[in-house]
Amino acid sequence: MIGSDTERPPRVVAFGGGHGLFASLKALCLLGIEPTAVVTVADDGGSSGRLRREFGGIPPGDLRQALVALANPADPVTAAVFQHRFPGKGELGGHAIGNLIISGLTDILGGTVEALEHAYRALGCRGRVLPMAAEPLDIEADVAGALGNVVTVHGQHEVASTKGQVRRVRVTPADAPACAEAVEAVNMADALVLGPGSWFTSVLPHFLVPELADAIVSSPARRIVVLNLSTDGETKGMPFDGHLHALAEHAPALKVDVVLADPHIVGDHTGLSRAAESLGGRLVVAPVAASDGSPRHDQQALATALRGVLGTG
Amino acid sequence: MIGSDTERPPRVVAFGGGHGLFASLKALCLLGIEPTAVVTVADDGGSSGRLRREFGGIPPGDLRQALVALANPADPVTAAVFQHRFPGKGELGGHAIGNLIISGLTDILGGTVEALEHAYRALGCRGRVLPMAAEPLDIEADVAGALGNVVTVHGQHEVASTKGQVRRVRVTPADAPACAEAVEAVNMADALVLGPGSWFTSVLPHFLVPELADAIVSSPARRIVVLNLSTDGETKGMPFDGHLHALAEHAPALKVDVVLADPHIVGDHTGLSRAAESLGGRLVVAPVAASDGSPRHDQQALATALRGVLGTG
Repeated sequence: MIGSDTERPPRVVAFGGGHGLFASLKALCLLGIEPTAVVTVADDGGSSGRLRREFGGIPPGDLRQALVALANPADPVTAAVFQHRFPGKGELGGHAIGNLIISGLTDILGGTVEALEHAYRALGCRGRVLPMAAEPLDIEADVAGALGNVVTVHGQHEVASTKGQVRRVRVTPADAPACAEAVEAVNMADALVLGPGSWFTSVLPHFLVPELADAIVSSPARRIVVLNLSTDGETKGMPFDGHLHALAEHAPALKVDVVLADPHIVGDHTGLSRAAESLGGRLVVAPVAASDGSPRHDQQALATALRGVLGTG
Repeated sequence: MIGSDTERPPRVVAFGGGHGLFASLKALCLLGIEPTAVVTVADDGGSSGRLRREFGGIPPGDLRQALVALANPADPVTAAVFQHRFPGKGELGGHAIGNLIISGLTDILGGTVEALEHAYRALGCRGRVLPMAAEPLDIEADVAGALGNVVTVHGQHEVASTKGQVRRVRVTPADAPACAEAVEAVNMADALVLGPGSWFTSVLPHFLVPELADAIVSSPARRIVVLNLSTDGETKGMPFDGHLHALAEHAPALKVDVVLADPHIVGDHTGLSRAAESLGGRLVVAPVAASDGSPRHDQQALATALRGVLGTG
C-alpha cells in the first residue's frame, strides 16, 4: 500500500460532498486510513441554505456529513446528535443540530477550520474535514432543455434538481481563495479520491477553485476517480464515459491514475476504458455496489476495491 | 466537613434555576464537591419557551445553565457552544445551542435524564443535573396589584416580570410526578442547598412537586437556604424575612438548619434571625456578594461561606 514503506498509513484526501463523500470516507476508515475530507461549500438548499440566508458563512451540511462519516463508532450518540433533524415545519423544523453546532463554533472560534477541529475532537473523528474554499460559493450551470435551448440555472439546489441536462458548472466568485489547509493536505497526500457523488455539484466544483485545482493537478499523489452507480438526477441520460469527459472539460490539465467502476455500469468496457485512458489512467472494474440494488456504494466493497487500487502500482 | 468521616466528599443537592443555581453550583465545585443540581421545569420564556411551543418537552434553558456551571473548565469551547445564542430576530435568533442539543438528545435517547447524562459527559461535568419533575410544568401566581386587588398571572415568564406583588405560586399539573433520580439524590444527600435564585419561580417551585417536597422535608440531610442579594423583580418590596415566610407558606413542614445571608441585606439581624428560627434554623451572616456592587454572589466568597456551613455543627 502507498505509504507502507515508511510504516505509516497512506495520506489520502477525499473530495466531494453529501452521501458520495460519506461512502468514500467510510470505506477509507475501514482500511485504517485517517483521511482528510475536502468538502464543497456551495450548498444553498435545506438547513444549510436557511443558515446561509440567516447568518451567511460556509454552509455546514456537507461538512457535517463528512464529520459523521469519520466519527468514532464507539460514541454513536454524539454522531446521532449531529445528524438529528428537528421535526415539523416550525422555525427549527428541518434543521440538523450538527449544522447549528458548526455554525455556532465558527462564530465562537472565528473560522470554519477552527470550528471543524473542535467538532472532530467532539466526535472522536478518525481524520480531518476541511472546506474546499475559505468562503461560501454559489454554483451556476448551463443547462440544456428539451428543445436544446441552453439556460443558466443559479444555485446548487436548483442545479441538482433541474429537469434539463447540465452541460457546464461555474462557481461565483470565480477566484475564491482555497482553504489553505486543504491545499496543504493535497500537496502532502499519497492519494486523492475524487467521487462518488453528485457529479456537477459535489465532485467537479473542486476544480473551480483555482488554487485547489492547481494543487490537485500538480500533486505527486495518485489520483483515483470513483464513478457513480447511477445517472439519476443532475446527470440523467449522461453515459459514464460522459462523466469523465465532463471532468476533463472542467479540469483540462487533470491526469488521473485510476478510474474505479462497478461492473454493473460498465458495458463492453471500450467507452469507459478509452475515456479513462484519455485522462492518462486505466479503468479498474470492481464490485462496489450495495447488494440491495440501490445506487449506493457498499462501504466494505468500496474499501476492498480501494485497497487494491491503493496497493498496486 | 459533612461526609469527610468516610473520606468521601459530601453529597450535596442544589435546587434552583438560572443564574442563582449557576452561582451555588460554581461555589460547590470550588470546594471539590460534585453536586447534583435539581432544576425547575416551568420556564416558558425565550428560547426554552419557543422550544416548548414547537415540540413540547421539558424546557432546557435552566438545565443548560446548570450543566455549564458544572462543565470542565479545561474545555471552555464546548461550554461556549452550549451557551452560544444565535444573533438576530430570524428563526434561529435567540436560541441557545445547548437548548437545541438537550432537546435533540431527549428525542434520540427517549428521556430528559438520559439526555442530561450524555450532555454532562460531553461537557466533562463535575456533578449531575436533573429536572425537578418528569414532565414540563406551568406556573401561575396570585399577584396583588397597586390597589390590593389580587389576580392570577399565568406562566413563569409573566410571573417573573409582573409589576405586581407575588403572593403565592402554584404549578400545574399539581400532582406532577417528581424526577425519580432527583428524589433519590435528595434521599442520599448530606446537604441540600436552596437558593439563591428567583424566589417564586426558581426556588419555591421545588416544593410544589409533592414527591420532591416530601423528600426535601424528610431527608436526613442538612438544609441550607441561601438568600438573595436584592429584592428586584418578582420579590420587589418584599423584605428578606418575608422571603423566609413565603418559603414556610409554600412548604409548611419544612425545617431548615442554616439561613445564609450577606451582611448587606441584614439590618439589625432581629427580623431575619427570628424568621430563620421560626424555620428551625439559625442565621449565618457571611460576605457572599460580588465586590462590584451587583446583586450577584461571588463564587469564591459563596464557596468559603458554604465551606463553613457544611463544616460546622
